[in-house]
Amino acid sequence: MLEPGDRVLVAVSGGKDSLALWDLLLDLGYDADGLYLGLGIEDYSASSGGYARAFAERRGAHLRVVDLPADLGFDIPTGARAAKRAPCSACGLSKRHLFNAAALEGGYAAVATGHNLDDEVAVLYGNVLRWDLAYLGRQQPVLPGGDGFARKVKPLVRLGERETAAYCVLRGIDYVVEECPMAAGNRHLRYKEAMNTIEERSPGTKAAFYFGFLDRVAPLVEATAAEEREDLHPCPSCGSPTVAEVCAFCRLAERARA
Amino acid sequence: MLEPGDRVLVAVSGGKDSLALWDLLLDLGYDADGLYLGLGIEDYSASSGGYARAFAERRGAHLRVVDLPADLGFDIPTGARAAKRAPCSACGLSKRHLFNAAALEGGYAAVATGHNLDDEVAVLYGNVLRWDLAYLGRQQPVLPGGDGFARKVKPLVRLGERETAAYCVLRGIDYVVEECPMAAGNRHLRYKEAMNTIEERSPGTKAAFYFGFLDRVAPLVEATAAEEREDLHPCPSCGSPTVAEVCAFCRLAERARA
Repeated sequence: MLEPGDRVLVAVSGGKDSLALWDLLLDLGYDADGLYLGLGIEDYSASSGGYARAFAERRGAHLRVVDLPADLGFDIPTGARAAKRAPCSACGLSKRHLFNAAALEGGYAAVATGHNLDDEVAVLYGNVLRWDLAYLGRQQPVLPGGDGFARKVKPLVRLGERETAAYCVLRGIDYVVEECPMAAGNRHLRYKEAMNTIEERSPGTKAAFYFGFLDRVAPLVEATAAEEREDLHPCPSCGSPTVAEVCAFCRLAERARA
Repeated sequence: MLEPGDRVLVAVSGGKDSLALWDLLLDLGYDADGLYLGLGIEDYSASSGGYARAFAERRGAHLRVVDLPADLGFDIPTGARAAKRAPCSACGLSKRHLFNAAALEGGYAAVATGHNLDDEVAVLYGNVLRWDLAYLGRQQPVLPGGDGFARKVKPLVRLGERETAAYCVLRGIDYVVEECPMAAGNRHLRYKEAMNTIEERSPGTKAAFYFGFLDRVAPLVEATAAEEREDLHPCPSCGSPTVAEVCAFCRLAERARA
């Protein structure tokens, strides 16, 4: 996933996974900066940002911050309403765009995100329920960079969320425990619950589902994802790769600021 | 699935789906016989067999019966214990074998089973959780016959189980309402529950999952299923196609009778 000494940009939310990941990467000797996005979500953003800053200070690590309301002129709730997207959709889109742009601008070798096995399994479940071959083709623990994309790595995909929580407890890392209030009742959480119910009765189901996909099915859907990449071109507004005329983030931002 | 006037063997359990299917096929003018398997499962077999016989009598249709204890010398609970299989696994294996053999012997154009959308979705979910490509390659509403296999068709895959139940109520068809006591708590029912929870909040998920699979993914896994078929040869004991030395049904029967 990473070469020794790589400069890595860690996507930091202030939660257990991203702080555990940052902690691990620092201990392993990577030149790991954090990037925290202030999403403008009520008290949740203030609270989660506080945990991110406290961790960075304690570890003497460098935390970059992009504050959507201050730096970009809109917050996620407004952006979601304006773009008629679910909040989690507007948020995910903004995160992907901003982490990617920051990594390219900052010359980082990769963006590292704290996605754990539970996350990946819930996303895979959702992609499979819709058989979205383009999304399935991109659901990889490592996405190589190039053509406007920073390299993306997910070093924690083998760990469950209880394991990253336990790691933080053992290491004395304080993290924001509440879920984002906008995520309450979203599909991702429902998929997690459904998979937890199955896992409880058949332990090992999640790992078999995710790693079986990577081993045996991802190669079959790769072609579809590759086809989609052929249609990518730089967004005329921001330069990010997109298949649309203007990229989804620029459209969201434009509507949110209107 | 079927040609006008085809001789069809309907796999009849005495439940809503198989009786609705038989009823529909008779009304549509097919030469449809039923085959009921007496599985030797306590009161459940007596009760479900009674519904199958009552329906056949009322419709003046021909019901064939194979009684496992009387005709083959073992029942499903004994067979499952002897073969160290879950009861539902021993039962499914026996049903597939016996319906196939009866259809070939009787010269039927196809075996028709009452699998509905809920059934197929739960089976697909299980196959996907394990990414069993051979099973996925075979999960089709129509399996052509040949090389020791009868043609298999599942005409009800577009209907939910509430729809087949409603059909029976409207048509005055009495059917066994209880689930098989051996199925209580099995994986298939857990998968159904998990999918029901998702469907309730996102109606249409089941149909998108199943038909999206058939449209976009089944073609990708076909090759794996075809490869497996190359290893098939006739069982030296019963002549059924198998990839093992002796077919799984003959091994089960041998152990159960020991």
